[in-house]
Amino acid sequence: MLKQSQMLIPTLREVPADAEIASHKLLLRAGMARQLASGIYTYLPLALRTLHKIQAIVREEMNRAGGQELLMPAMQPAELWHQTGRWDVYGPELVRLQDRHDRSFALGPTHEEVITSLVRDEINSYKKLPINLYQIQTKFRDEVRPRFGLIRCREFIMKDAYSFDTTQEGLDINFQAMYDAYTRIFTRVGLNFRAVEADAGAIGGKGTYEFMALCEIGEDTIAYSEEGDFAANLEKAEVVYKPSAKPEGEVPAFEKVHTPGVKTIEQLTKAMNVDAKQIIKSLIYRVDEKLVMILVRGDHELNEVKLKNLYDATQVGLAQEADLRALTGAPAGFVGPVGLDTEKVEIIADNYVQDVHDGIVGANEADYHLAHVVIGRDFKVGRFADLRNITEGDECPRTGGAIKFARGVEVGHVFKLGTKYSQAIGATFLDENGRSQPMIMGCYGIGVSRTIAAAIEQNNDENGIIWPVAIAPFHVHVIPVNVKVDEQRLTSEQVTEQLHRAGVEVLFDDRPERAGVKFKDADLIGLPLRITVSDKAAQEGTVEVRIRKTGETHNVNLDELVPTVKKLLASIDHTGAELFGE
Amino acid sequence: MLKQSQMLIPTLREVPADAEIASHKLLLRAGMARQLASGIYTYLPLALRTLHKIQAIVREEMNRAGGQELLMPAMQPAELWHQTGRWDVYGPELVRLQDRHDRSFALGPTHEEVITSLVRDEINSYKKLPINLYQIQTKFRDEVRPRFGLIRCREFIMKDAYSFDTTQEGLDINFQAMYDAYTRIFTRVGLNFRAVEADAGAIGGKGTYEFMALCEIGEDTIAYSEEGDFAANLEKAEVVYKPSAKPEGEVPAFEKVHTPGVKTIEQLTKAMNVDAKQIIKSLIYRVDEKLVMILVRGDHELNEVKLKNLYDATQVGLAQEADLRALTGAPAGFVGPVGLDTEKVEIIADNYVQDVHDGIVGANEADYHLAHVVIGRDFKVGRFADLRNITEGDECPRTGGAIKFARGVEVGHVFKLGTKYSQAIGATFLDENGRSQPMIMGCYGIGVSRTIAAAIEQNNDENGIIWPVAIAPFHVHVIPVNVKVDEQRLTSEQVTEQLHRAGVEVLFDDRPERAGVKFKDADLIGLPLRITVSDKAAQEGTVEVRIRKTGETHNVNLDELVPTVKKLLASIDHTGAELFGE
Repeated sequence: MLKQSQMLIPTLREVPADAEIASHKLLLRAGMARQLASGIYTYLPLALRTLHKIQAIVREEMNRAGGQELLMPAMQPAELWHQTGRWDVYGPELVRLQDRHDRSFALGPTHEEVITSLVRDEINSYKKLPINLYQIQTKFRDEVRPRFGLIRCREFIMKDAYSFDTTQEGLDINFQAMYDAYTRIFTRVGLNFRAVEADAGAIGGKGTYEFMALCEIGEDTIAYSEEGDFAANLEKAEVVYKPSAKPEGEVPAFEKVHTPGVKTIEQLTKAMNVDAKQIIKSLIYRVDEKLVMILVRGDHELNEVKLKNLYDATQVGLAQEADLRALTGAPAGFVGPVGLDTEKVEIIADNYVQDVHDGIVGANEADYHLAHVVIGRDFKVGRFADLRNITEGDECPRTGGAIKFARGVEVGHVFKLGTKYSQAIGATFLDENGRSQPMIMGCYGIGVSRTIAAAIEQNNDENGIIWPVAIAPFHVHVIPVNVKVDEQRLTSEQVTEQLHRAGVEVLFDDRPERAGVKFKDADLIGLPLRITVSDKAAQEGTVEVRIRKTGETHNVNLDELVPTVKKLLASIDHTGAELFGE
Repeated sequence: MLKQSQMLIPTLREVPADAEIASHKLLLRAGMARQLASGIYTYLPLALRTLHKIQAIVREEMNRAGGQELLMPAMQPAELWHQTGRWDVYGPELVRLQDRHDRSFALGPTHEEVITSLVRDEINSYKKLPINLYQIQTKFRDEVRPRFGLIRCREFIMKDAYSFDTTQEGLDINFQAMYDAYTRIFTRVGLNFRAVEADAGAIGGKGTYEFMALCEIGEDTIAYSEEGDFAANLEKAEVVYKPSAKPEGEVPAFEKVHTPGVKTIEQLTKAMNVDAKQIIKSLIYRVDEKLVMILVRGDHELNEVKLKNLYDATQVGLAQEADLRALTGAPAGFVGPVGLDTEKVEIIADNYVQDVHDGIVGANEADYHLAHVVIGRDFKVGRFADLRNITEGDECPRTGGAIKFARGVEVGHVFKLGTKYSQAIGATFLDENGRSQPMIMGCYGIGVSRTIAAAIEQNNDENGIIWPVAIAPFHVHVIPVNVKVDEQRLTSEQVTEQLHRAGVEVLFDDRPERAGVKFKDADLIGLPLRITVSDKAAQEGTVEVRIRKTGETHNVNLDELVPTVKKLLASIDHTGAELFGE
């Protein structure tokens, strides 16, 4: 019987001063974690139970998807990191040390080098591929600014998996298997998450998804649709263009309007009493070495990643004020496409600029704009493309539903690596024709300890944590109103014992504290059900079962307690899993 | 179904050159572990399964004994180690690093500092004590000479537990609970082990046992009795003295014998044609600042730890040759107690010297000995004490049985720390009277990864590993003689499936290899039972079940396979545990 008096659950009434976000505060307040040094935490018994439950779910789903678990060392010889060039590239985030013989080691933030060298040494034929190897392990990354409790740590627990294939199609299959496994894992854990199409970034390789737990504190903006499963990072989300109907009637010739000091879209809408949709924003960018004018509708924002991808450029950035003046004769805020020399500067536009049939643009003269401008008639556009950020309410490119925005914390990542590491480390195989080929790799990470924090971010109220059933440290909190009353204590012990025998995990609060203190702690710790044992147990044979999430209470006969508790837990658990292994 | 073709089990035919001992060779050859750097290993899937099984046993027994699991960081701030002085004392074995802000950290080889600071911060009243906190975690120690595979590593897995009590009696109870838990753990794991009384050494504190797995490669000599549970390190084992009968007749006056160049006991027994038991060895030691002559019977060895403890000295060592000459006028090999000035040097003797009734000693003159020397008549002994090493055949101090010697590998350690760390770190509690007292600590370690190696050391033959059932990676190896024969393959799959459903863990060797290769690998990997599926399965409805340990084979009807396998496994498993959770 797990008696709370004997457990290390040091709850706190005060909100710790340095904790900024809910999960950080609650992990400390509920006596689940303690900081040893910046970004370095001890997991106390309650948190470790949750950690083990998440690990068990990860393990089950990884094994089901054909993964094989192994365990690699944390200490990695520098030589391996030199081979891939990452010893220099990784920068100060790589924790480095020297042994007694002055040999250099990294403390692994990730294990591409180690796994690839292992597979290089042990596998050399297509007959032994594909293979998918994973581990659950403590990782190290010397974050410049550790923060948010278990969200951004210097020592943390990851599941990292690596697949090795002989063909791109094989990688696609492994990748999909991991995608599906991650979907099952985060569903079972009880997270509200989205698999988000992400930009592959400098690591290269096509096909990468971030699994984002949706919550306010997230650092990334996600565009998603509630219909279907579309979700993408803002910089990645494609915008569908469908032309709107052209209004009747002729547009008069354009005219110059005096707009002294009116530089922003907001100022312009007020000064001219128009909608932002009628304005065409003209931006001059330096794309690698070339100057380009990009037109975007006044209510839209340019997406620099899309611009970069359109030109396959390595660098894009706003042009200098001097470039603007040389090209247009006007300062920023008053440049525009009319009369510009398209030999000197290409004019491109976001698709939606085509919807501006009677527009306003800068006049290429300080303090003036042009009204009644018509594309094609008054200036030419080199090409139209998807160049803007998606906005809330836009049409989902998959389902046509309305796009919503959310913020997210990355809890998982699936990534097609290709041959970057196998080539650097020399992990090759002999194919059916006896030819040596580099293995084709994928890598797949889950932030196991971060997932605890993400789950708390999504499941809490002003009183404390509200654990999803699948990862709650215990299922039920049994609390006698007054433990010194023998009958209450005995009933509490019996109830604990009965539930335990039925496979329900119970924490029994046997502390000689006031009921109010115990209830406050119970709300803080946030187990799914609380059973309060009062004098009614002896008088009427009932106890009160309270659902943490809804506050709903039930008076339950002791005879029916076990089945009722199981039924209630099943009803709270949205995952529909079999909770008690029946 | 776990198919061997899809698992990373890279068995080796060759014996790796750098592996000196059986477990190291077999871990490599059976495809269980690979070295990444000196003393740093990757656990491949088979080894990880065994590791998890040992961890599960450790966890169960620790929880049963009232332990609470938590997880502390590997990175420990140097400040904590400065507080206990261990930053300087620990030497080059402590792995040290600096973070990006040049703050120093240790990678924990042990966690006394961290746990004591945690308990200091969270517990301050006797009401919350005792408590016993443990973790299973990767540890780091920069061994000067990593060797023996998983026996002496630089990165390894430990279970470390720490108890905090208010009284010495409380510590005794916690200590005994851990002693009992360790006994259950190593029994369940299937080790042949002894709990050995060990010297507390420099760490101080009374009461320390090492749990030693008995095996040839051990670095320590253990004296034990097969009756009862007495076992002690050689330096610690008490020798019981019972006087032998004094022989009849007078001993003649001593006489000087010319023994040119005869310096050792062996030379003396030959030169004078006597038994070593008739010789009294005279050793001159410097005990701290004082010179002492110690007499030991010729067939015995002085135990320096006992000498040290007798004088409560901080240092003992053989005196310099110059000291010998100054005191006796003779060189080493010829000194003796007769005629020595006991004002200048105390003469003490091991108890068994009393049995020498007609002895031979050095004459305090080069190249001469004295024969027919009688203690008391010819020289005086200041005191007799237990000063010698125990020998095989000596009487066990507990049971009276005969002492045997064995060598052992330390797999566990229980240790009464006292207040060393609580005082240094300031972990105090308020007692019933509101007085502040330092907590009284114990610490308890298990070498989890080392236990794998110790189990293999004890359980192997020339063909490979012979796993104890409780920690075998799988219970059964199913091998079709020829997997290309459809009937054999199908039967193998059915058998695997049936056993799996009955809770038996099966590895199915579906590789298209010759039977001989598969049998060799099966012996190497060493699962408790091998099931060979041949054409007899179709013809007679039988398969062959072979017990790895004995080589015994049974022809078993497919109908009776599941119960037979369970019965056989239970019969091999000496621990009597319930294997399949029924």
